[in-house]
Amino acid sequence: MKKTFFISLILSFSLHCGYAQVYKPTWESIDSRPVPEWFSDAKFGIFIHWGLYSVPAWAPTKGPVYEKYSEWYWARQNPKDKPFPAFTEFHNSVYGAKTSYTDFVSDFKAEMFDPAKWAEIFKQSGAKYIVLTSKHHDGFTLWPSEQAWNWNSVEAGPHRDLAGDLTQAVKQAGLHMGFYYSLYEWYNPLYKKDLPKYVSDHMIPQMKDLVDRYRPEILWTDGEWEQTSDQWKSPDFLAWLYNESPVKETVVVNDRWGKETRGKHGGFYTTEYDLVGDLAADRVKFGHPWEECRGIGGSFGYNRNENLEDYESSESLIRILIDKVSMGGNLLLNIGPTADGRIPVIMQQRLKDIGDWLSINGEAIYGTRAWKNTIKEKKGENIFFTAKGDDLYVIATQWQNQPIKVQGVTKANTVSMLGFKGKINYKVSENTITINFPQVSPSHSLSKYAWVLKIAGGAK
Amino acid sequence: MKKTFFISLILSFSLHCGYAQVYKPTWESIDSRPVPEWFSDAKFGIFIHWGLYSVPAWAPTKGPVYEKYSEWYWARQNPKDKPFPAFTEFHNSVYGAKTSYTDFVSDFKAEMFDPAKWAEIFKQSGAKYIVLTSKHHDGFTLWPSEQAWNWNSVEAGPHRDLAGDLTQAVKQAGLHMGFYYSLYEWYNPLYKKDLPKYVSDHMIPQMKDLVDRYRPEILWTDGEWEQTSDQWKSPDFLAWLYNESPVKETVVVNDRWGKETRGKHGGFYTTEYDLVGDLAADRVKFGHPWEECRGIGGSFGYNRNENLEDYESSESLIRILIDKVSMGGNLLLNIGPTADGRIPVIMQQRLKDIGDWLSINGEAIYGTRAWKNTIKEKKGENIFFTAKGDDLYVIATQWQNQPIKVQGVTKANTVSMLGFKGKINYKVSENTITINFPQVSPSHSLSKYAWVLKIAGGAK
Amino acid sequence: MKKTFFISLILSFSLHCGYAQVYKPTWESIDSRPVPEWFSDAKFGIFIHWGLYSVPAWAPTKGPVYEKYSEWYWARQNPKDKPFPAFTEFHNSVYGAKTSYTDFVSDFKAEMFDPAKWAEIFKQSGAKYIVLTSKHHDGFTLWPSEQAWNWNSVEAGPHRDLAGDLTQAVKQAGLHMGFYYSLYEWYNPLYKKDLPKYVSDHMIPQMKDLVDRYRPEILWTDGEWEQTSDQWKSPDFLAWLYNESPVKETVVVNDRWGKETRGKHGGFYTTEYDLVGDLAADRVKFGHPWEECRGIGGSFGYNRNENLEDYESSESLIRILIDKVSMGGNLLLNIGPTADGRIPVIMQQRLKDIGDWLSINGEAIYGTRAWKNTIKEKKGENIFFTAKGDDLYVIATQWQNQPIKVQGVTKANTVSMLGFKGKINYKVSENTITINFPQVSPSHSLSKYAWVLKIAGGAK
Amino acid sequence: MKKTFFISLILSFSLHCGYAQVYKPTWESIDSRPVPEWFSDAKFGIFIHWGLYSVPAWAPTKGPVYEKYSEWYWARQNPKDKPFPAFTEFHNSVYGAKTSYTDFVSDFKAEMFDPAKWAEIFKQSGAKYIVLTSKHHDGFTLWPSEQAWNWNSVEAGPHRDLAGDLTQAVKQAGLHMGFYYSLYEWYNPLYKKDLPKYVSDHMIPQMKDLVDRYRPEILWTDGEWEQTSDQWKSPDFLAWLYNESPVKETVVVNDRWGKETRGKHGGFYTTEYDLVGDLAADRVKFGHPWEECRGIGGSFGYNRNENLEDYESSESLIRILIDKVSMGGNLLLNIGPTADGRIPVIMQQRLKDIGDWLSINGEAIYGTRAWKNTIKEKKGENIFFTAKGDDLYVIATQWQNQPIKVQGVTKANTVSMLGFKGKINYKVSENTITINFPQVSPSHSLSKYAWVLKIAGGAK
Repeated sequence: MKKTFFISLILSFSLHCGYAQVYKPTWESIDSRPVPEWFSDAKFGIFIHWGLYSVPAWAPTKGPVYEKYSEWYWARQNPKDKPFPAFTEFHNSVYGAKTSYTDFVSDFKAEMFDPAKWAEIFKQSGAKYIVLTSKHHDGFTLWPSEQAWNWNSVEAGPHRDLAGDLTQAVKQAGLHMGFYYSLYEWYNPLYKKDLPKYVSDHMIPQMKDLVDRYRPEILWTDGEWEQTSDQWKSPDFLAWLYNESPVKETVVVNDRWGKETRGKHGGFYTTEYDLVGDLAADRVKFGHPWEECRGIGGSFGYNRNENLEDYESSESLIRILIDKVSMGGNLLLNIGPTADGRIPVIMQQRLKDIGDWLSINGEAIYGTRAWKNTIKEKKGENIFFTAKGDDLYVIATQWQNQPIKVQGVTKANTVSMLGFKGKINYKVSENTITINFPQVSPSHSLSKYAWVLKIAGGAK
Repeated sequence: MKKTFFISLILSFSLHCGYAQVYKPTWESIDSRPVPEWFSDAKFGIFIHWGLYSVPAWAPTKGPVYEKYSEWYWARQNPKDKPFPAFTEFHNSVYGAKTSYTDFVSDFKAEMFDPAKWAEIFKQSGAKYIVLTSKHHDGFTLWPSEQAWNWNSVEAGPHRDLAGDLTQAVKQAGLHMGFYYSLYEWYNPLYKKDLPKYVSDHMIPQMKDLVDRYRPEILWTDGEWEQTSDQWKSPDFLAWLYNESPVKETVVVNDRWGKETRGKHGGFYTTEYDLVGDLAADRVKFGHPWEECRGIGGSFGYNRNENLEDYESSESLIRILIDKVSMGGNLLLNIGPTADGRIPVIMQQRLKDIGDWLSINGEAIYGTRAWKNTIKEKKGENIFFTAKGDDLYVIATQWQNQPIKVQGVTKANTVSMLGFKGKINYKVSENTITINFPQVSPSHSLSKYAWVLKIAGGAK
Repeated sequence: MKKTFFISLILSFSLHCGYAQVYKPTWESIDSRPVPEWFSDAKFGIFIHWGLYSVPAWAPTKGPVYEKYSEWYWARQNPKDKPFPAFTEFHNSVYGAKTSYTDFVSDFKAEMFDPAKWAEIFKQSGAKYIVLTSKHHDGFTLWPSEQAWNWNSVEAGPHRDLAGDLTQAVKQAGLHMGFYYSLYEWYNPLYKKDLPKYVSDHMIPQMKDLVDRYRPEILWTDGEWEQTSDQWKSPDFLAWLYNESPVKETVVVNDRWGKETRGKHGGFYTTEYDLVGDLAADRVKFGHPWEECRGIGGSFGYNRNENLEDYESSESLIRILIDKVSMGGNLLLNIGPTADGRIPVIMQQRLKDIGDWLSINGEAIYGTRAWKNTIKEKKGENIFFTAKGDDLYVIATQWQNQPIKVQGVTKANTVSMLGFKGKINYKVSENTITINFPQVSPSHSLSKYAWVLKIAGGAK
Repeated sequence: MKKTFFISLILSFSLHCGYAQVYKPTWESIDSRPVPEWFSDAKFGIFIHWGLYSVPAWAPTKGPVYEKYSEWYWARQNPKDKPFPAFTEFHNSVYGAKTSYTDFVSDFKAEMFDPAKWAEIFKQSGAKYIVLTSKHHDGFTLWPSEQAWNWNSVEAGPHRDLAGDLTQAVKQAGLHMGFYYSLYEWYNPLYKKDLPKYVSDHMIPQMKDLVDRYRPEILWTDGEWEQTSDQWKSPDFLAWLYNESPVKETVVVNDRWGKETRGKHGGFYTTEYDLVGDLAADRVKFGHPWEECRGIGGSFGYNRNENLEDYESSESLIRILIDKVSMGGNLLLNIGPTADGRIPVIMQQRLKDIGDWLSINGEAIYGTRAWKNTIKEKKGENIFFTAKGDDLYVIATQWQNQPIKVQGVTKANTVSMLGFKGKINYKVSENTITINFPQVSPSHSLSKYAWVLKIAGGAK
């Protein structure tokens, strides 16, 4: 007892003095750091893919998932790389074969970019964090990176610190700011020729610069699959990030730190368009934080080729959000701004609809965790569960005319429907609660798309 | 009496044999031609503003109605004309003071233009006719007009017959095709210097060329306000159009043929953003066909400056459509394609939502006329009426939990709600019908935004 | 005798009072007007081809004369016209097949144009008059022509009145200003469809506008060959020009007024790269003023494809000037400015070398006429003659080490070499003068390229 | 003694067998390597400044020498650097303040570049070597340098290996190829932040890459003045170049290897527009190879602002060549190609005139050295001397009508004038030779501008 006291005294002292735990550059140590709670509480973030690819802004709308990504334009069109005929045909027809991807830089002007307006849109969507592509696989940075001289948004194209200006506005709106960062660069000669030097002289300095300059609370790496985490020096970097960086207390990272790390090491685990295996169930079991990312349409970068039928409806997106959250995950929903710096209005519409839904039902999303019985009680396609403290939330993506039964609930202090003032009829018996949806007419200003029953005390 | 009979015999004979009446170039004669029924039956059309102004695609989103029109960019920005500071500031900042509006032509490329896709979108919206800006006030034509040499979309910019290609696709989709045409041209020296010559050598040949080439069923003129209809030679042109042109049987025109003609002469009368006085009531009384035109946002030409809040919601647009139709009018809803030839997806969304509503409720819109008691029975803001044959349609833009009463209805064969299979309770007594909206839950796949009660035989 | 006196009195009176002869719109009457003496005295002018063709600025350097003209780029490259493979290949390779000639307008900026500097260069060249392409066959005008709306240098491209600004500078330098003007326009639909209207509404107003605005002293028409002078209304226009225009006293025109007029009607006759037959000898006989025009290289418009070997040397150009002047003609030597408004320095060099030569030997050029015995005394390739008043000039384009003999000279008051202070030995006997060139060493600052012997009184 | 003999035997053996001396990375050792004779024999080279600065291609034509350099455009115009008002005014007026130098890359297209034609022009000029700016102070490379990713002519702008293509053509024409290379880069963040790393990771690899790829025989460094040669690691690099590189036998370098090295260390010494002190006399005394570089006008990079009066005449350039050669130096005369890849024709003219002069008089230039009595016998401004073997050449830049006397000549086997077949009168007495220029007339096809008397045996 004495000993314990002594230790906690030391710990308390260290924390007060800023001596946090020291992490070692091993996965064992790195992984021992819990993902900061704010991230698991936030649930909903906005991903932003913006860069030179926003100029051609084109990809096919049919075909395999990865071929619909407009941000891969360079690699798809580059005649020196594996040819993708659809890209080549579009490129040659519209720009001519003599034009190369690098030539697009003069048309990336961001002249309509209004970061305060963006932040306002984000705020109203109910998202709690933002992840901007500070650098994609083309290596072009949205901040004045010394390692990307003349290949960044300040010295070329927009002549503006896009990352910095957005960070300021996002933070001012009270949201968490984060950056996507691609470890590899398709055509950087240093990467192709001298990996250790690329890592030590280019990549690590860039990541540290990003962190030091803008103090992001998320570092969302990608492009890790060609090398091991040792080759990328990922544990070393993360030890720095956790021990020394100005955001060591709050920063969150993902699991893309080497070809062997997804779903295993780092911070939260990631899925993308539900790919990377059906790991969701296991994650719930393990209770490890995770995040699904995807576009509103089939592309991350803006794709001019996408029409209405290529975009998910608001209803569908809200369902996706509920689904991920009910499994303990976050949703990082992507938008693709245009080269002139606007958020396409259809994306604004989708974000607003989500925001409207969350303004009523956010209680069942933010700060929740997967309910312990979620897997067992999976009620087909239309009923989802979340839990927060003692409370259980039942989320129906279809209005229920018949009573619904939920097993595993032994007690309910009260039952209510979020956004509905009337009384909800229910009964609890034998480990099961049975609830009737209320009688309402279309004139009720209920939320659209999905409805939440809150069972106070039901998750105990 | 004998005489009258004889005349009608002749008329009947002429019509059957294709010998139409010969119209004289006087308003009296021109106005004697009825607006072809197809137009009044069509109710819903799509207006398209597309041209050089789609390149800067900018206007303020606040201020007087006309200052939000991006298609007026040239006149607003031209340093030789009355200055509008907001336009000047934007222009000089983004393009530089040395750039002139004419320089935009090289960026108007329409490289993504897919007329078949456009037609599909139009078709799905439920619109029955299309009106494309063949030429706006800048004088730039979307067809290879000989009178606009090097100032048209074939010899400059897109190098494509935009009007022709769209006409073909629209007709193939079974829709009526029409053209907007500006009588005046802001800066055409011929217009400014020698009006009669401008009219005879430039304007009339252009309009005839349009009609002869593409056989449009609507000619939607504008820019008429600086001259009288005599100066424009409008009656002469219309006499040609009605007597000799290849579309003499079916063509419809509006009322913009001279500074004195709006609401008085020509074909259907026009309102624009509900301006041109509150003539709606009178129109219903007079029974003269009319049409309201407006954008989805505040501009006709595409305006990059508009964000979500600047666009009407689908609900609002459907309400506008219902309102106009209930007063005997049509709605010509405008979209502004981008310079690269796409319909912004938010506009696609709005059109689809209208189309979805019409797919259930179109019966209460197409082919209807204002109900005789519309004015008297005006039920506040949320109840509208239309009539078709003996049937009366009651359109509620808010779900009614209380029974609604409609006076002037003495009989009802049946009462139903469009898209709803259940029974509707009602009773008729003392010239009044009382109807109860049904009990439905949110799970019913009713239409959104507005619901139609059909009172069969109620308009007798 | 009395009568004659009376008439000359009247004539003299009219001239003093400004009542010039009235010309009728017939060739007989038009041709009765003498070409103003200033033109025949001027001898050396500078032609300027500048326009949209200065943007691609390309033509082959080998092949037939007319195919080397870069100002014909549009007609050579236009896929709708007869194909010239060299042009097509260059165009498609450098600009892409989707680019059309009209697209070049945005790259015609004239941002370096300094008219005062141009005038200074012209002045130093010894040229006495300037002829600028106010409009070439493409119809694009270098002045704000109302008939070429949006197809002129003020409303498009440079956004500057190039013709006006140059006229002012040229006149200020004390030189005569003139304009080239193409009667036809390759692709003007009005020209192709309604010639009379094109002539009356487009061409004649343009020419009158040019004359009224800028008061040129030369009107150098071209593009006349597809129509007769009657179709062009040339006699009517010239009657206006000679009777009513503000330059009626001094203006000079050429002979390109209809397919039948070259070498027959109008003002001075024209040759071009010595083509249009070998009419030189006849012209001398007839004594009619004429002018040879040609580029320094093979093109009139600037041709980026021309290298040093494609340009005539200064020596060659001086020889050409001497040759033409000795035959009673003028030389209109062409320069092709760049799209940014500069005179290529190699052209400046050629002009300066001519100017240097003229500064010594101009006496034998300006104000002279062909010597009466020129044809008979043609001394091979290197000896030329000119005459002014009683004086005869013998111009040698090769230094003569042997005495030269000229027949037809019966007297010589003195003989001198221009620019040489020493004495010249000669003797006259039997209708022949024999002259010895002086002994000089390379250190003498004689003129280069050609030397003039002046035989005072030798032309009597 | 035995030992010495043995060593020299070994050395002799090594040289014969290709075992060259091993140089140490010290100036003492580096400087001990003689400048290869081919360079001192070559006398006349052509410098080429070509890069992004060829796009704006502008500098003032008045003012201090260094402010007339268009290749300094970025540093002069960059608002973050010391402002030069003339540049700023031009830039903002023509391109707008929002345009930055890096934006010029899309207009550097080299679409007319014909290396074979360039080589032909060089060959005809009589130049024996070429020095191309492989990289100027802006850091943009004309070859696909891995250290300048996306900032080189293959990945941006022309999309072509300009250095490689030119090297091939130049070598094929039998000329020596060399590269200019700027050690420093104005705005490279690595240079500004971490010099040692910049040197080791960027600069040295670039120079070695250049040498390994293209095997240049001249490496003409510059931009050395901010650091010492130790900081640049110059001795180390040169040791590599002399010991290991593929051009170790033949390569020549200049003296710009550190702030303390000009005129002291490296290979040949350099002057620039005759600046860097009046070292010429000393150089002759020391007999160290040296080279003057300069433009034909006041700029190295192409300057559109230069008119004829800003260019040296051919006469002047030939005089400059003679002057430098008579003092034991070389002339590296610069040309500035245009952004589209052409050598301005005025520059072609100058080169051809020099070539024509050298085709007659090259014997007095190539392979010569300064005559031992040059300083003492300096004959005013117009007489120069060169020597080759036993022969003495007297070069007069003005024709001499009076006998000329040269002291220090005790014997003459024969005296002739190059290009002149006649006899030359002379006499030798008392250590002095007296020569009469011949009697010639302007008809003699003597060389222009300067004449050479060859005194066979006169330099013994």
